[in-house]
Amino acid sequence: ELIATSPAPEQDPLPSWNEGSTKSAILDYVTAVTNPDSADFIPIDDRIATFDNDGNLWSEQPAYFQLFFAIDRVKVMAESHPEWKDTMPFKAVLEDDMAGLISTGEHGLLELVMATHAGMTAIEFESIVDDWLKASKHPRFDRPYNDLVYQPMLELLTYLRAHQFKTFIVSGGGVSFMRVWTEDAYGIPPDQVVGSSIKTVFEYDNGQASIRRLAELDFIDDKAGKPIGIHKYIGKRPVFASGNSDGDLQMLQYSADNTYKSFQLYLHHTDAEREWAYDRDSSIGRLDKGLDEAAAKGWTVIDMKGDWNVIYPFQVD
Amino acid sequence: ELIATSPAPEQDPLPSWNEGSTKSAILDYVTAVTNPDSADFIPIDDRIATFDNDGNLWSEQPAYFQLFFAIDRVKVMAESHPEWKDTMPFKAVLEDDMAGLISTGEHGLLELVMATHAGMTAIEFESIVDDWLKASKHPRFDRPYNDLVYQPMLELLTYLRAHQFKTFIVSGGGVSFMRVWTEDAYGIPPDQVVGSSIKTVFEYDNGQASIRRLAELDFIDDKAGKPIGIHKYIGKRPVFASGNSDGDLQMLQYSADNTYKSFQLYLHHTDAEREWAYDRDSSIGRLDKGLDEAAAKGWTVIDMKGDWNVIYPFQVD
Ligand SMILES: [Ca+2]
Ligand SMILES: [Ca+2]
Repeated sequence: ELIATSPAPEQDPLPSWNEGSTKSAILDYVTAVTNPDSADFIPIDDRIATFDNDGNLWSEQPAYFQLFFAIDRVKVMAESHPEWKDTMPFKAVLEDDMAGLISTGEHGLLELVMATHAGMTAIEFESIVDDWLKASKHPRFDRPYNDLVYQPMLELLTYLRAHQFKTFIVSGGGVSFMRVWTEDAYGIPPDQVVGSSIKTVFEYDNGQASIRRLAELDFIDDKAGKPIGIHKYIGKRPVFASGNSDGDLQMLQYSADNTYKSFQLYLHHTDAEREWAYDRDSSIGRLDKGLDEAAAKGWTVIDMKGDWNVIYPFQVD
Repeated sequence: ELIATSPAPEQDPLPSWNEGSTKSAILDYVTAVTNPDSADFIPIDDRIATFDNDGNLWSEQPAYFQLFFAIDRVKVMAESHPEWKDTMPFKAVLEDDMAGLISTGEHGLLELVMATHAGMTAIEFESIVDDWLKASKHPRFDRPYNDLVYQPMLELLTYLRAHQFKTFIVSGGGVSFMRVWTEDAYGIPPDQVVGSSIKTVFEYDNGQASIRRLAELDFIDDKAGKPIGIHKYIGKRPVFASGNSDGDLQMLQYSADNTYKSFQLYLHHTDAEREWAYDRDSSIGRLDKGLDEAAAKGWTVIDMKGDWNVIYPFQVD
């Protein structure tokens, strides 16, 4: 088989991106660092690109999709947990009381995650996530959650890979939750997905080998955890880093302090009509310090409303 | 560029392997699972191959090479640690008293590792390892340690990759120690190296972004830790697993309980003349339960003396 190393020059590799400074900045960077005659040339092995997921490769409103998963699981599992009717945070979930759920804070959310993500084997969990994705629909768009990936970001991932970048997800979301569907959705295989995790044990019985998921945190891949996770899982510093919130700031800082020419990209949610508009005051995907630092450092900021002519793949003609 | 999907039929992809049942078993397996018309066909995305490192891709006698690194580092660092002259395990190292060092047990070795592997930034550590590799020689062969990789295993890695297997290292050794040289030695990039690790923190100061290594264990990638590490880092079950000691047994068991046709490979060190001969009674790389299970399960066992016509690349004509 042949591998296309670059698109024909007359073809637009980023058709869902409007012409302008954002699109130009991306194209100019990739052109510069992949040209062997350029002083900015980066050898193929060092072309590491890292992407946040929630709110960066797919939507994250009105709540993280993995939280919808946990909520749906609580409702399914409630039948065998009658005590949940009277116990927070489960009570709030069963009563569709989102404010009550949020009032339980980080501790309540963690309890929710452990009750729904731990106890089973890895294979069982993967099949639970897969079934949920097939059966569930996003409340606003009435479509499967994995339909709500961003078409322009799919094009960017494909464009980078065509220029021999290795693309990784580096997300605060659960790594085992993501790996079920990220290969199909983004063309990113499980071993290139870095995320938060819980501890596991290995079980072996008469030829049957399983990984069992424990209700104990292993690693939180957020904020300073992102460069730590990149070092732990990838072992190279990214030259291209893309995120949408203050939780990505350290990843972008880590990428920016580079011996190679590097690229830092923030997605600014500015499109209340086609998607959502939120930034400095949002509890989900807050982008505040990141906006200031992007301005100060000259990082590229995507204005979703102005820079993207389409949001989701199902909207492409 | 073109990618060669398979060698021409008349070319031997494993020239350092003698004809016989071991070589045939490998060739037959790869042929079966990469043939789209075969019932045993494995899709490319699921062709995951995992390799132990010490004693499996390079030698591990008379001691793990990473232990030689730690010992050499103690000797260099001793000047600024006068107290080490009277403190075990450092005293034993400085007096070349290997028996004394071993008598300090796991705790002593851990202390040695932390003193020599922690405190500095990731970049500093990588440069220390790189410098050491360039300056140090193996006591028996008087060659750089990374000359002592196994030529037949290099051919096997290349052969698997030519058939679109993704090759990973899964080793009890330190991941940051290995990643410095495994891309050059084996063609395996840092993000495909799974190993033991210590905790790190992210430091940021005025544009300078660093990962600092802490004297605290994070993960031990050995025995049951190997399938756990594979699940954590790779997220898919290997179809091909290769090791040389009881520390690999769980990885081979995990691989063997597979929905796909899978392959389990043990390297048996039987060549006292060209390399070393050791198995059931060795303190380094003990292969005891593994030999029994390989016999019981029909796993493939490499007889180094009989199956390999050359050991190291520098011995190739
Ligand atoms: Ca995000
Ligand atoms: Ca070994």
